[in-house]
Amino acid sequence: MSPGPNAARRSESSRKAILAATEELCRENGYRKLTIEAIAARAGVGKTTIYRWWPSRGAIVLELLDETATVGTAPPNTGDLAADLRALLQEVIDIIVPADTSPGVGLMAESLQDPELGRALRERLIEPRIETFKQRLRQAQDAGQLPADADLEVALDLLYGPIYHRLALHLGMPDSDHLDALIAHVLRALTAPKAG
Amino acid sequence: MSPGPNAARRSESSRKAILAATEELCRENGYRKLTIEAIAARAGVGKTTIYRWWPSRGAIVLELLDETATVGTAPPNTGDLAADLRALLQEVIDIIVPADTSPGVGLMAESLQDPELGRALRERLIEPRIETFKQRLRQAQDAGQLPADADLEVALDLLYGPIYHRLALHLGMPDSDHLDALIAHVLRALTAPKAG
Repeated sequence: MSPGPNAARRSESSRKAILAATEELCRENGYRKLTIEAIAARAGVGKTTIYRWWPSRGAIVLELLDETATVGTAPPNTGDLAADLRALLQEVIDIIVPADTSPGVGLMAESLQDPELGRALRERLIEPRIETFKQRLRQAQDAGQLPADADLEVALDLLYGPIYHRLALHLGMPDSDHLDALIAHVLRALTAPKAG
Repeated sequence: MSPGPNAARRSESSRKAILAATEELCRENGYRKLTIEAIAARAGVGKTTIYRWWPSRGAIVLELLDETATVGTAPPNTGDLAADLRALLQEVIDIIVPADTSPGVGLMAESLQDPELGRALRERLIEPRIETFKQRLRQAQDAGQLPADADLEVALDLLYGPIYHRLALHLGMPDSDHLDALIAHVLRALTAPKAG
């Protein structure tokens, strides 16, 4: 029997079941205890089905995040730059808390020790979202809210950096006031006249 | 036989051998492959000796980093604030590259999934060094290089954040020019007049 529409439908439903099982198990027990065996059992598929599509649990989580992370190719633009940046940062915070059962944090932790997975994470998940972020900053430049020569690479590091710093060093996520203060400081740095 | 000076000396030499073996094995094969068995074999001690002193490989690496990370209780103060901040940041960068064989990155990755180890990392390794960093900023405030009301918590996040952001997302460490630009932006943010 050749694979036809029914086979394709069955595959897609298996794929979705596998991603859903991965997310559920991670939220229940943490990424550390996530195994291909457990995912297969929960999704009601065979292990070979999983290994046909993905080389590792990290690859499954990468696909899961790519489908569920809501940052699209068009950035939010309400006209209020600080508010839009806050929405973008809040989205990252929502992905990484609570850290010990977050699929995103599990993937980050694993990719720190696996350069190949790290490269896939960067290329598939991160770079397109950095592009979306920069697009929003370019819109702010066009609107005269940021100088034309503002350093967008610096802006990226300064805005997103605190979240990862606090995650890596277990300092707790920024509260609402601290998040506002961070964004205000960065916008001030980008717009203040340079010395010399 | 009661433990006397000789026993204490033997213990200290075993402890040092265990820490050295841990560092060597991590640099050779990566944290991922680090096992208590391999550490014991390399250090020439029994596994029970290791388990008597440390509950896990993470705890050994924490002690290793606490002994080798050079940030002391007194911050560098050459009078040049940007240069001193750069020295502090460079020290962190030196600890985390290359990421896949760095004991520090291994510990960070593991502690992302182990809240208990994360708490030990923060209390033993991070908080004293944050205090050293803030001490340097307070000296800058006393010297009139930073406003008395500069937000030191924001400064901490903005200065160290980029390193962890780039580490977590596999964006590569900042080069020399980018590091200078980051520091210049943060100092501008801390000194520029606040809006409103």
